[in-house]
Amino acid sequence: MTFYQRLRFIQRKSNSLLCIGLDSDIRKIPRSLLKHRNPIYQFNKKIIGATKDLVCAYKLNLAFYEAIGKQGWGTMHRTLSLIPDDVLTIGDAKRGDIGTTAELYAKSLMVDYAFDACTVNPYLGEDSVLPFLKNKYQGAFILALTSNPGANDFQYLNTQGRPLYEHVISKVRKWNSKKNCGLVIGATRPSDLKRARKLAPEMPILIPGIGAQAGNVELAVRYGCDGKGELAILNAGRSILYASHQADFAKAARAAALKLRGEINSYRGKLFP
Amino acid sequence: MTFYQRLRFIQRKSNSLLCIGLDSDIRKIPRSLLKHRNPIYQFNKKIIGATKDLVCAYKLNLAFYEAIGKQGWGTMHRTLSLIPDDVLTIGDAKRGDIGTTAELYAKSLMVDYAFDACTVNPYLGEDSVLPFLKNKYQGAFILALTSNPGANDFQYLNTQGRPLYEHVISKVRKWNSKKNCGLVIGATRPSDLKRARKLAPEMPILIPGIGAQAGNVELAVRYGCDGKGELAILNAGRSILYASHQADFAKAARAAALKLRGEINSYRGKLFP
Repeated sequence: MTFYQRLRFIQRKSNSLLCIGLDSDIRKIPRSLLKHRNPIYQFNKKIIGATKDLVCAYKLNLAFYEAIGKQGWGTMHRTLSLIPDDVLTIGDAKRGDIGTTAELYAKSLMVDYAFDACTVNPYLGEDSVLPFLKNKYQGAFILALTSNPGANDFQYLNTQGRPLYEHVISKVRKWNSKKNCGLVIGATRPSDLKRARKLAPEMPILIPGIGAQAGNVELAVRYGCDGKGELAILNAGRSILYASHQADFAKAARAAALKLRGEINSYRGKLFP
Repeated sequence: MTFYQRLRFIQRKSNSLLCIGLDSDIRKIPRSLLKHRNPIYQFNKKIIGATKDLVCAYKLNLAFYEAIGKQGWGTMHRTLSLIPDDVLTIGDAKRGDIGTTAELYAKSLMVDYAFDACTVNPYLGEDSVLPFLKNKYQGAFILALTSNPGANDFQYLNTQGRPLYEHVISKVRKWNSKKNCGLVIGATRPSDLKRARKLAPEMPILIPGIGAQAGNVELAVRYGCDGKGELAILNAGRSILYASHQADFAKAARAAALKLRGEINSYRGKLFP
């Protein structure tokens, strides 16, 4: 099974396009967890336990784990071991370095951590991306258009008649011989998401920015999905992780994830009957 | 002292524009070191001991430390503790993420590791870069034009009449209110280095690609330096670290660093008398 086939299978099995971003922050998790030796791990364990039947993927942003220092490496590994095989793991690392160095990042993320997919920054071009695409079972989501305000600085620059991010999409299509490339397009930019889906009808799109960043869920489904109402991965982090700051946080996370999955699926039912 | 003043002071004190990239690779270090509990640390210790009077900076590429897994965090910290205060430490991490996440990367690199400077990827724009520029004593080198073949994919795209990397330089100049921004321009691209120096006459430029990547040293000095023959930082990694694979590796590294510093300084003497 290629990466695309795996993703489609998992989205069907879980009936979910929802990805939970495990952006677990020691300053935001319930204080009751701070008594544990590894509070972030305990937090992730409860969140995963409460939501693993509701998602197609978990996304771990490496910044959150690097920020806890020495414990970060083990916390990531132990967290990954909790995630069932039929849920994708995405290492949101946004790495980008020259070829020989990208090989090392890819080894760390795709082999040692063994993420199912990673995010990659395109600025350094082909030799910085290909090391993440060696294995047809694992994918790379290349940043095309991000959800943050700074996306306006370069990603929309008019470059030979079209915005820079469209050039990125064209290149990614060329790098996609193993059918394991995806794109990152922020939910905060629905008209561009529509354009991206048109340019890359066959590609998975990881869509951050719903939830705390207030991207529109209906438009993310409408424009992010392929013709079958699949292959969009809608990521929410804070709005689920911190649905409650009390002891009932896992229950509240489940309720928030259920609600969001339901909302996504109601749009899918309407738009892709 | 601002970051620029520190850099100038250090380059004068050491009489050196040379930066050694501690891209220490377990597959390449002398086999005699493998008996140690932490071979990479032992290797770095010898290299730093043999070269610290010859350089203005050491650059640690995080990929090499992430690739060794659990030991990476401690190895980086212990390596940094060996570097004298009057030599700059550069965390070559090339991070780039949305603002809230960039804050975490910046905390890890600029506070916890306490690098004097970091490399940053510009693709996500202002809010991804500013967290690295909070402190006027510490700097960020933003990737403008990289030394690898993939640089051709996007960095030269004609964007409103000029290559994309020039837009990056323009933005970096706007982000430079604390005088702690620098640029990364590959030594493999001398005519663009000349252009970059013209566009940013006051800015430090980190220039990778001499040594193993075969960038021309004379042109890197000629076009990379400011009017005083300073503020260019010429990075060499493999050509110094692995000058010998035998027990005399530290001595050989010193000889290679002395030779390269001498070569750089002879061009400086000629070009900036």
